[in-house]
Amino acid sequence: MTAPLQPLLSPRSIAVIGASDNIHKIGGRPIHYMKTHGYAGTLYPVNPQRDTIQGLRAYPTLDALPEVPELAIIIVAGKAAVQAVHDCARLGVAAAIVIASGFGEAGAEGRRQQDEMVRAARATGLRLVGPNSQGLANFGSGAIASFSTMFIEVQPQDGPVAVVSQSGGVAAMVYGLLRGQGIGVRHMHATGNQADITVSELALAVAHDPGVRLVLLYLESLSDPEVLAEAARVARARNVPIVAVKAGRSQDGQRAAASHTGAIANEDRAVDAFLARHGIWRVDDAHALARCAPMYLRGWNASGRRLVVVSNSGASCVMAADAAESFGLTLAPLSDATQAALAERLPGFAATANPVDVTAALLTNSALFGEVLPVVGQDPSADLFLLDIPVSGMGYDVPRFARDAAAFADTAGKPIAVAVWQQPVADAFRQAGVPTYANAAEALSAFSQVVSHQERLRQIEAEGEPPAPARPALPVTADATLSEAASLGRLAAAGMPVVEHYVCRDVDAAVAAWQRIGAPVAVKASSPQVPHKSEYGLVALNCNDPESVASAFAAQTRTLEKMGATCEGVVVARMSRGQRECMIGAHWDPVFGAVLVVGDGGKYVEVLRDTAVLLAPCREADVARALEGLRIAPLLYGVRGELAVDLAALCQLAVQVGDMVHAAGGEIRSVDLNPVMVNAGGVVVVDALVEVAGGSL
Amino acid sequence: MTAPLQPLLSPRSIAVIGASDNIHKIGGRPIHYMKTHGYAGTLYPVNPQRDTIQGLRAYPTLDALPEVPELAIIIVAGKAAVQAVHDCARLGVAAAIVIASGFGEAGAEGRRQQDEMVRAARATGLRLVGPNSQGLANFGSGAIASFSTMFIEVQPQDGPVAVVSQSGGVAAMVYGLLRGQGIGVRHMHATGNQADITVSELALAVAHDPGVRLVLLYLESLSDPEVLAEAARVARARNVPIVAVKAGRSQDGQRAAASHTGAIANEDRAVDAFLARHGIWRVDDAHALARCAPMYLRGWNASGRRLVVVSNSGASCVMAADAAESFGLTLAPLSDATQAALAERLPGFAATANPVDVTAALLTNSALFGEVLPVVGQDPSADLFLLDIPVSGMGYDVPRFARDAAAFADTAGKPIAVAVWQQPVADAFRQAGVPTYANAAEALSAFSQVVSHQERLRQIEAEGEPPAPARPALPVTADATLSEAASLGRLAAAGMPVVEHYVCRDVDAAVAAWQRIGAPVAVKASSPQVPHKSEYGLVALNCNDPESVASAFAAQTRTLEKMGATCEGVVVARMSRGQRECMIGAHWDPVFGAVLVVGDGGKYVEVLRDTAVLLAPCREADVARALEGLRIAPLLYGVRGELAVDLAALCQLAVQVGDMVHAAGGEIRSVDLNPVMVNAGGVVVVDALVEVAGGSL
Repeated sequence: MTAPLQPLLSPRSIAVIGASDNIHKIGGRPIHYMKTHGYAGTLYPVNPQRDTIQGLRAYPTLDALPEVPELAIIIVAGKAAVQAVHDCARLGVAAAIVIASGFGEAGAEGRRQQDEMVRAARATGLRLVGPNSQGLANFGSGAIASFSTMFIEVQPQDGPVAVVSQSGGVAAMVYGLLRGQGIGVRHMHATGNQADITVSELALAVAHDPGVRLVLLYLESLSDPEVLAEAARVARARNVPIVAVKAGRSQDGQRAAASHTGAIANEDRAVDAFLARHGIWRVDDAHALARCAPMYLRGWNASGRRLVVVSNSGASCVMAADAAESFGLTLAPLSDATQAALAERLPGFAATANPVDVTAALLTNSALFGEVLPVVGQDPSADLFLLDIPVSGMGYDVPRFARDAAAFADTAGKPIAVAVWQQPVADAFRQAGVPTYANAAEALSAFSQVVSHQERLRQIEAEGEPPAPARPALPVTADATLSEAASLGRLAAAGMPVVEHYVCRDVDAAVAAWQRIGAPVAVKASSPQVPHKSEYGLVALNCNDPESVASAFAAQTRTLEKMGATCEGVVVARMSRGQRECMIGAHWDPVFGAVLVVGDGGKYVEVLRDTAVLLAPCREADVARALEGLRIAPLLYGVRGELAVDLAALCQLAVQVGDMVHAAGGEIRSVDLNPVMVNAGGVVVVDALVEVAGGSL
Repeated sequence: MTAPLQPLLSPRSIAVIGASDNIHKIGGRPIHYMKTHGYAGTLYPVNPQRDTIQGLRAYPTLDALPEVPELAIIIVAGKAAVQAVHDCARLGVAAAIVIASGFGEAGAEGRRQQDEMVRAARATGLRLVGPNSQGLANFGSGAIASFSTMFIEVQPQDGPVAVVSQSGGVAAMVYGLLRGQGIGVRHMHATGNQADITVSELALAVAHDPGVRLVLLYLESLSDPEVLAEAARVARARNVPIVAVKAGRSQDGQRAAASHTGAIANEDRAVDAFLARHGIWRVDDAHALARCAPMYLRGWNASGRRLVVVSNSGASCVMAADAAESFGLTLAPLSDATQAALAERLPGFAATANPVDVTAALLTNSALFGEVLPVVGQDPSADLFLLDIPVSGMGYDVPRFARDAAAFADTAGKPIAVAVWQQPVADAFRQAGVPTYANAAEALSAFSQVVSHQERLRQIEAEGEPPAPARPALPVTADATLSEAASLGRLAAAGMPVVEHYVCRDVDAAVAAWQRIGAPVAVKASSPQVPHKSEYGLVALNCNDPESVASAFAAQTRTLEKMGATCEGVVVARMSRGQRECMIGAHWDPVFGAVLVVGDGGKYVEVLRDTAVLLAPCREADVARALEGLRIAPLLYGVRGELAVDLAALCQLAVQVGDMVHAAGGEIRSVDLNPVMVNAGGVVVVDALVEVAGGSL
């Protein structure tokens, strides 16, 4: 099988359209890089002004080449770039990278030119990277189709990391940060405006590369989640973690992204849900992308969150214990045997409980770290190890500390990290292959990320993949925005637990409904034009005699009449209480499909915002896990002598709502159930609003 | 006036007891440092083995010196250290620093020896630093009574920062981090076990030093808040910010602190409240202490939180916009005039809205930052400026960028920070005096801290200091733990709005009370032995006829009888609803005095934990500000058509509760009002529990 995107990542021949003899110019750098880093294919500089470029024979036009190149790097700008794409398409070039900016991100005319390039490319199957791209670089094949200056700044070295980014700046920065930690980088790709090829596609391609063991992504917009999901699948099968920044979390960020790469805004909590679903870990910025690489690359499998801190400073012990709590780690309770073994090795006044303070005695006994680490390493309650060294340098045997830590890292099989701010000391540990951070907070944040990420990946492995999230087609079935009566009817028809209610057309029917229910009722006039009834006095609660039912009916129908709104009957429903009022909502997102929201309900749902977001379809276990993160979670599990609510029923209902919106494939815009009364004995939907895509019907 | 702690910070003469000729030993380093850094007083090495030490005449004993030294550095350990303290006290030495560890932090015998040193010192007025101290260093006077190796590692330079720390490791680390940023450090003091002199006292002393413009503190325990409050007062008057770590936030951290410096646990939220009250900014670790120093030292006064981002990377613009939101900053909306001026200077495809992306055009036009900064600098909506440079180095005119940023920093009078990860580039900006961070998140976190800190300091200046928090003496007035009846009575007597209620001794009285109230009532049997009534069926709600009142009375008194609990009558109280149920509590803390808690109330208060903590006495404005941070705050201000609740009444009640516990000076252990029914028309206390210090009465 051919590797995916082979013409971009390992082309047999490359034309550089707009090649330069000057290795410091954009047209000169890729050729220079490829000559330096062992590209084994054929390079064709294209430049009508010169016979040779950087010692290679140059050609005046693409047509003049002795063969059709597999890849073209288009350095020329504006209309010349558009023409070059036409030429590539006509000749049957397999892939082209358009470097120039000033297209889709820069107004209507640029957008038009970008569209023209895409049309020309699609006509003959030419694949396009860019425009507005820094290019692609594969240090495995030597195909450095990139003009990044960072390869001069920081010496490249092939290695296990792939960086795929919309932004060339981020790609270069992550590359530089990784190389600064001594980590080799194989792939450094920037997709720019993504007129054709996306970060998702390149992620899928590099996930297949057997030399890649970690994939780092930077996205400004996500339009092909199914491709990224496939990349995640391939990576999981190979045990390759993917970490991603999806920028544009804030409104200002989305606006900035639109003017940067023409990015279209994604619903941010749906992005969170999508990435979590597929086991891709989301971080906030380029630094965070690079931060955990040393730990992932050691291939450690953390057995848990119980941390041991070893330091030569008591204060660092205290602060690390505080920080552990902030990052969701606990301190491992060392066994008596471990503490006794520590006591033999430590000075009398040192602490043998965890954190382990070897004290300033380290200055006179350089063996202390090397003696202590194996002792705590064999304690069965210890999962993670932080060596925190706030003071060392001159007078300390730093090379020995680094050797001892490396020996532990190589043999213990459990994660260790070092926190040290002094650069030369840090370098000693890094060169010894120990993950090293400037301070304990960064180290513990890295532990927390890697442990949580591995937990999520194990969940996916254990439970199997969630149901297929592929976007279904749009069926055309429904016919209108739904009133509450119709909404409740639709939910009941789908088998959901809806409150006992009757849709009444006249006063007699309303009173009869109250009698049939045999308990206090709510009376609510139902109109598709008035979704928010209580603000207009269209809800009467606790009616428990014929007079109040009748007068509520009369008052509400009169109100609707005055408003000129259609009345689709008056709902008479049993009053229902919940140990807790929850909400379940779902809506249709054009990128992610059905997005499910579950959480605390009631009238303040928008203010208190204690909700979780998932993509549908999903399983009850997925909903249960999402509920765990809510502030009200303890109330659902039962506190102060209360029974736990019927979580299974709540999760089942949420799954049903998600399935309904998913199956409707966009026909249902949104479903909003609030409140859902939640009790130990079950759940019941009391209020519902369904919006359908009126225009398409 | 003599400067505070002058014998420690600027002694005229210093004896080193246990002096060494080897400058790499603890007994050799202080002498070496003082000779190197220009100590102008007299140095007396004390060592019975040698005639000269490091070229100075040595003396066999303290008694053999030609004068009584002002300060003694006691290097010798164990019993010899105790003896040296006795000698110093006997001779009338003014101050002594005990370096050795193995005392108060190391078990009963150590504790006993430490107490003996303190007794000896107190007897003659000798002031003690330590034991278990790295010592004090004042580069203003050259009195380097410290053995820190960090002065060899990183060249000292006198400057505007004072570091005062219980931990020598933290002091050294903060010193090193500051010096690494090119910042001079005058004071670097470590107090160790604080048998006598505390961080608070040294903070007060350095706050008086006219050369100090920033004070950084590390505390593991705080036993003398009134001294630290005085230091804060002095510092505020001189416009000197104080930033502090108080470690031991977590339980594990407190345990580690106890074994490190014998620290006694403080109630952490009271620490927060205390520091906020006095305008001391709390951060989490040593790195955070050093992080904001460059920004504080520029002396900028930020006018607000509106940020302008300038970058040569579009992606950095997007991520900085996202990060701004995370740190509570907003993007400044640049005026049309500013944007037009930017458009003249920027390439056609660059963004002129904020964030301002100067694009990769920076590579060919090195003037861009210098042209753009003054334009955005004059926009009245701009308060803060971030220059974010993810890619530069070779091929870029970095010296020019640094000059342009420095010129802006010097003239604009508004805060600017640079984010750059490439070390040589960062160094260029630092050397030019521009606050420089490894990434945007750190820079924006620093902005956020400095702006918030300055806001708090301005509040204190505008409102005057909060009422004196001095700890009153313990009066002896009350006589028992209080039942609900007594609790409500006590609150009513103090003028608090308590629900209408009657304490009834028999059924007839209970029924009469219901009649007098004329509305549904709650019936609650009141016993000092059963503070949590509802769990024992001792609360009946919504009784609205003689039968239910009578049967509740009978059932509850029977229950109490069976439990063998005293009945102090049955409370019959008007049923009361609240738009919101809040809680107000206060308790007596042995260090901070009256601690006030206000927040969301009801039965889930312990689970949902939406509360704020203040120290009492305080003012209504202080309570109102604390309430702003609650998750339920928007509900108090009125949402979804609801009126705002009577915040003034809520704040007034909280102040009253705080005052009551404060005035009782420890006699009242705690007051717990939950729920306090809060409505637009006022507040009313429905349920109350007062605990008094039974043992002292």
